[in-house]
Amino acid sequence: MKRFSMLRCSCALVFAVVPALVLASASDQDAIHYREAVMKTLNEQAAALGQIASGVIPADNLVAHMQILALTASTALIAFKPKVAGGKAKPEVWSDWPDFSKRMMAFAQETAKGVKIAKEQGVNGALPAIIAYANDCKACHNMYRQNKKGEH
Amino acid sequence: MKRFSMLRCSCALVFAVVPALVLASASDQDAIHYREAVMKTLNEQAAALGQIASGVIPADNLVAHMQILALTASTALIAFKPKVAGGKAKPEVWSDWPDFSKRMMAFAQETAKGVKIAKEQGVNGALPAIIAYANDCKACHNMYRQNKKGEH
Repeated sequence: MKRFSMLRCSCALVFAVVPALVLASASDQDAIHYREAVMKTLNEQAAALGQIASGVIPADNLVAHMQILALTASTALIAFKPKVAGGKAKPEVWSDWPDFSKRMMAFAQETAKGVKIAKEQGVNGALPAIIAYANDCKACHNMYRQNKKGEH
Repeated sequence: MKRFSMLRCSCALVFAVVPALVLASASDQDAIHYREAVMKTLNEQAAALGQIASGVIPADNLVAHMQILALTASTALIAFKPKVAGGKAKPEVWSDWPDFSKRMMAFAQETAKGVKIAKEQGVNGALPAIIAYANDCKACHNMYRQNKKGEH
């Protein structure tokens, strides 16, 4: 019991680790939460990159954010593989899987290229790539993400 | 105008890039938004790692999530450097900066080590490190993060 109480902390991680002793297989809700973690990470990192690209935040972390974006993009397709409706995902994610997966793989490839650009050319050189990512986001969200009130 | 309307999309990135033509210097609100993007990323990636550690999500993306966690941790200290109160940060972040920065640097170092462990030993080998990160989160949040109603 002592070890358990140590683990009951404020970190999101712990709330997920503790049930390890109870749960063994993925549920639909788990699948939705997982892909939401991936997509929220993309969103937060896109926001950070946008701030750097616009000059309101110094570019010290530019390369790291580009790396995080690329790594997260590389995790996204697996996160959507379980055919579980729910969250913001439209059913078209799975009914149009060849297109969805093609877009997601292309996004992962383009963001990986962006890391190299950022390393070699800094924020000004990376700006076209960052704007291209934004357009990729928009195109994919328009087709595969439900718009809920109060959200962009 | 046409180019602007193309850029006004649903992606968080674009909402930040568009003001590039208007804003030139960081404001307090920018600094708060930026560190929130970093901390939310840590939270989402911790949640994803917790799901993998607990076995409810397959471990295919384990190494990528560990890399993302480590990279994000490496961006965090810079994000808190501006002495801007607000958001969930307690004033102690800056009044106790030597301790806060020491903890944040240690977290970055430990998560970087975790990448190697995950690569070499997989999810079972990485489990102690993941639980240790959760305790690091809790210890730092207890001292430096305000608890707001409805949040962990």
